[in-house]
Amino acid sequence: MGEPVRITSRDNPLLVKLRKLTQDPSAYRKLGLVWLEGDHLCRALLTRGQRPAQAVVSESGWLQPALRELAAAAPKAMVLPDALFAGISALESPARIGFTWVPPALSDIAAGQASVVLDRVQDAGNLGSILRSASALGFGQVIALKGSAALWSPKVVRAGMGAHFNLRLVEGIEPETLTALQLPLVATSSHAAQAVHEAPLPWPCAWVMGHEGQGVREELLQRCDLTVRIAQPGGEESLNVAAAAAICLHESARRRTG
Amino acid sequence: MGEPVRITSRDNPLLVKLRKLTQDPSAYRKLGLVWLEGDHLCRALLTRGQRPAQAVVSESGWLQPALRELAAAAPKAMVLPDALFAGISALESPARIGFTWVPPALSDIAAGQASVVLDRVQDAGNLGSILRSASALGFGQVIALKGSAALWSPKVVRAGMGAHFNLRLVEGIEPETLTALQLPLVATSSHAAQAVHEAPLPWPCAWVMGHEGQGVREELLQRCDLTVRIAQPGGEESLNVAAAAAICLHESARRRTG
Repeated sequence: MGEPVRITSRDNPLLVKLRKLTQDPSAYRKLGLVWLEGDHLCRALLTRGQRPAQAVVSESGWLQPALRELAAAAPKAMVLPDALFAGISALESPARIGFTWVPPALSDIAAGQASVVLDRVQDAGNLGSILRSASALGFGQVIALKGSAALWSPKVVRAGMGAHFNLRLVEGIEPETLTALQLPLVATSSHAAQAVHEAPLPWPCAWVMGHEGQGVREELLQRCDLTVRIAQPGGEESLNVAAAAAICLHESARRRTG
Repeated sequence: MGEPVRITSRDNPLLVKLRKLTQDPSAYRKLGLVWLEGDHLCRALLTRGQRPAQAVVSESGWLQPALRELAAAAPKAMVLPDALFAGISALESPARIGFTWVPPALSDIAAGQASVVLDRVQDAGNLGSILRSASALGFGQVIALKGSAALWSPKVVRAGMGAHFNLRLVEGIEPETLTALQLPLVATSSHAAQAVHEAPLPWPCAWVMGHEGQGVREELLQRCDLTVRIAQPGGEESLNVAAAAAICLHESARRRTG
């Protein structure tokens, strides 16, 4: 890596493009780049043997040898005054470094791969949590149906804590296309007769998780091979979708491990 | 309820106080009131037989008979232009109604009550999700140790979807005080020998959940009666804390229900 580009004007064209990438949740689709903010995510990328497109470092970050060394993993670097870095940050407490990176372009479902299917899940924190659970609990593919929030948005990437790099992520899928999975679809429903902890769960399978308010759409529920309920002795109306996902994926995982 | 107070100036003293309540996450501690935004939360309060202190409605909300009727459950109402309502809202998409409410003042731990202990958990979404899981899965008390984020902040209340009203919530506790619980403390640790799905879990118990980055502090871990690991066949480094909580609480619940 040569000398970094130093940018001081907030109207610099490179910075304008970067700001779009970091602040528009779905800009990555047009720009073909994603924004990875913070040294944890940047290091997680390198651990996977991937190479960033560019390092972006704040002035105060550039004074830290560890962050300069991290930035050197990119073919080029941009250094910004702290105030301008804060202006591109997706975080309340801005980091001091970020990478841009070209993610794998995937549009095809991998048949037979244990999966999580997202039916219009909206919240970035929920998506990040579900991706972490999928990765940890042995579900290698996450399929976001049309209407779900953007999986590679800066907030979801941040909440995913590196799980993105460990998963096959497929977006913008129509429900009909799920037949390509060639796997049983399993969903939760409060009306189901069997509790998830008692039901025989197929492996591999695809767990279907739905919209925060509306759940899984009815026509998709009807295409599921199995529906189960989560026993709720407290009698509350519902769990958060990422909490429900964690319980279901863990139920599958514990049958395999033990 | 008589005629509502109509406020048109953003400098109105009532509105200034309300803005503080809705935007400062811990203002409720001084003001002795919490902010419940959106008709779902307002209705959940009434379902519990509780009475709000005041209804706050936007002009456009006031045009809806259903929201006017909901507001009538409060002894007084305030109507604001939509722009001013948006200015007090804790949400990206502001609701059209909110209640202020005097929550129960609790500082004592209830002995023997199945509980979740929060050791410096910070994220509002995580806290709301954990409260929902506790309520649904039969843990009636949540104890936030000093250093945890404020349980009754507008964002946590919103994420809790009404679970707050179903729980005994105790805040600002020092770890030493946990002896008053008179229950076994259980925590997760990646170093534990037993997996949570195989370990005999005591009932009732208190699950201890830790800070998003640092986990449960070491001295508290050492006071736990049992530590278990969550089997992660995917080999990732960690689950989101609210996802881990859901798995653990469900493991306790399924032993009881099944």
